[in-house]
Amino acid sequence: MNTAGAQLAPVLNAGGPQLAELLWRTEGRLAEIAGGHGDALGRHAAGTLSAGGKRLRPVLVFLCAAAAAGDGQPAGPRVIAAGAAVELLHMATLVHDDVLDAAPLRRGRPTVYAEGGRDAATATGDLLFSRAFAELAATGSAEAVAALSAASSALARGELMQRADAWRPDVSPERYLERCRLKTASLFEASCRLGALFGERAELAPELGRFGERVGLAFQILDDVLDVSGPTERTGKPRGADLLDGTVTLPLILARERDPGLGELDLRAVAADPEGLVAVCERITATGALDESRRRALAHVESAKDALNAIELPNRAHAALELVADGVVERYA
Amino acid sequence: MNTAGAQLAPVLNAGGPQLAELLWRTEGRLAEIAGGHGDALGRHAAGTLSAGGKRLRPVLVFLCAAAAAGDGQPAGPRVIAAGAAVELLHMATLVHDDVLDAAPLRRGRPTVYAEGGRDAATATGDLLFSRAFAELAATGSAEAVAALSAASSALARGELMQRADAWRPDVSPERYLERCRLKTASLFEASCRLGALFGERAELAPELGRFGERVGLAFQILDDVLDVSGPTERTGKPRGADLLDGTVTLPLILARERDPGLGELDLRAVAADPEGLVAVCERITATGALDESRRRALAHVESAKDALNAIELPNRAHAALELVADGVVERYA
Repeated sequence: MNTAGAQLAPVLNAGGPQLAELLWRTEGRLAEIAGGHGDALGRHAAGTLSAGGKRLRPVLVFLCAAAAAGDGQPAGPRVIAAGAAVELLHMATLVHDDVLDAAPLRRGRPTVYAEGGRDAATATGDLLFSRAFAELAATGSAEAVAALSAASSALARGELMQRADAWRPDVSPERYLERCRLKTASLFEASCRLGALFGERAELAPELGRFGERVGLAFQILDDVLDVSGPTERTGKPRGADLLDGTVTLPLILARERDPGLGELDLRAVAADPEGLVAVCERITATGALDESRRRALAHVESAKDALNAIELPNRAHAALELVADGVVERYA
Repeated sequence: MNTAGAQLAPVLNAGGPQLAELLWRTEGRLAEIAGGHGDALGRHAAGTLSAGGKRLRPVLVFLCAAAAAGDGQPAGPRVIAAGAAVELLHMATLVHDDVLDAAPLRRGRPTVYAEGGRDAATATGDLLFSRAFAELAATGSAEAVAALSAASSALARGELMQRADAWRPDVSPERYLERCRLKTASLFEASCRLGALFGERAELAPELGRFGERVGLAFQILDDVLDVSGPTERTGKPRGADLLDGTVTLPLILARERDPGLGELDLRAVAADPEGLVAVCERITATGALDESRRRALAHVESAKDALNAIELPNRAHAALELVADGVVERYA
């Protein structure tokens, strides 16, 4: 189930035929990679690779490459490689997350974990990790590989931090934000940096990277709001699913400040009781913490736009990047 | 428990103070990396990183760098980075293997899996993967990153192949050898290639890579022989442990040709019965399949030496590399 269409349509319009072509060629490259590693990857990863998704990270690569190209000339195969690499890395983490969560479904399809078991899914994730780096190394840019490996380290550290903080009653908003930066925003940032590196104005990489990081923070916060607010038909998960493995996110962190009783709950007991979980979601909502969380996410979107305004970009690229930032919010409107 | 000393002592003597210094500096770099990622990696990976092991892959990097240096000048920090990278990648696969095998101990220490659980161990493995690429990307050589990512893909494909072939009665010797190439020899090969790349005679990379690949094949075959032959005091595992997860290796493959009854056994039933497992090991031994497997491993060692003889190397580097090849055999003598 590709749920991307609705939010990305304006971006695709703004990006024009060039963006659509890059995305199309990236799909082709991902399919080649899936088919090029024998039965094992063919069977397990091809499904994951072809299941789609928003392709939001490749979109960031391509729009930033266009932004840094200056004269709007067609981007070369290095940009496709970067788009494929960030998507491969993203999918590697999804495959491993599904192992950790013992998840049966993702995007409406059985996960690699469900089809192949824990062992095959762990190895498939490792293979997707490896292919991400192989794809980018083929561009000949060690700087690009360094950007991807920084993001890859951050993703893993974010995952470790999340597991270390599980069930803890005292996670601060600052620590939560650092976790979002590590586990989500780092790859958004790297996607933008890679685009800039492969454009003609690599000096834009820091600002475009900042733009990506802030969009990523907003994306993660809004995702965490949606987990509490529902509706479950949109998330495909029960309300409060993050709490099932003890993940404490911004809505609960802020709600505890307003309703101290929430801070005294035994989260393991809450997680074990589906009705109790819904009641806690309602109680969080009643404090106004969801609105405050959304407000903070929007502030990150505005801050992302500020990063764009700090540099000179072609109008069309600037507009398309703003639409991506707005699309992240739209997704949750 | 570092069991390397005995076999590597002649290599260290032949490599001289330069090799010892490189290994020492690599330990320092690994400790820095372990300490540089916050509590999470600090706690889980530092133990793994400091637990030692043979450091055989860094040794190959350094000896091949010396072989390709020509004038024997001290190797730069890029060689240390390559040595650290191959060890980090190796350790990443060990951490993930321990998750898949639910292994409590490795090298006499509790595994990350045992100490931190499945989630932490999966993320720690991912982090070690990422750091391997980050370390190598910092050298600025995309060619080096490409060599590592090729190996990393091969390791994961080998793991997938092993799981796909589990319990199958019809694994051919050729397919077994391909699995050894993927899951073991590929990283030996990459280690040698990286050494050559960072020496002054990068054109030696293909031959030195071939040397590494053949040493790796011998290493894996002899490891598989030891699994059947024991003694368990040396392996730290019960005899026939590979069969516990259905891994069929060369001794059993060859023994089935000589004792067809072995081919009709229900391997799952054998694995479920500790006494039956020992009996199967004895039956494999009785066919002479262990001797034949050792003979094939030795042929790979000879073939590795042939690869060395095909190129002009400084005498001292040549001698040290031959000692590594012999050391792999000694280990199992």
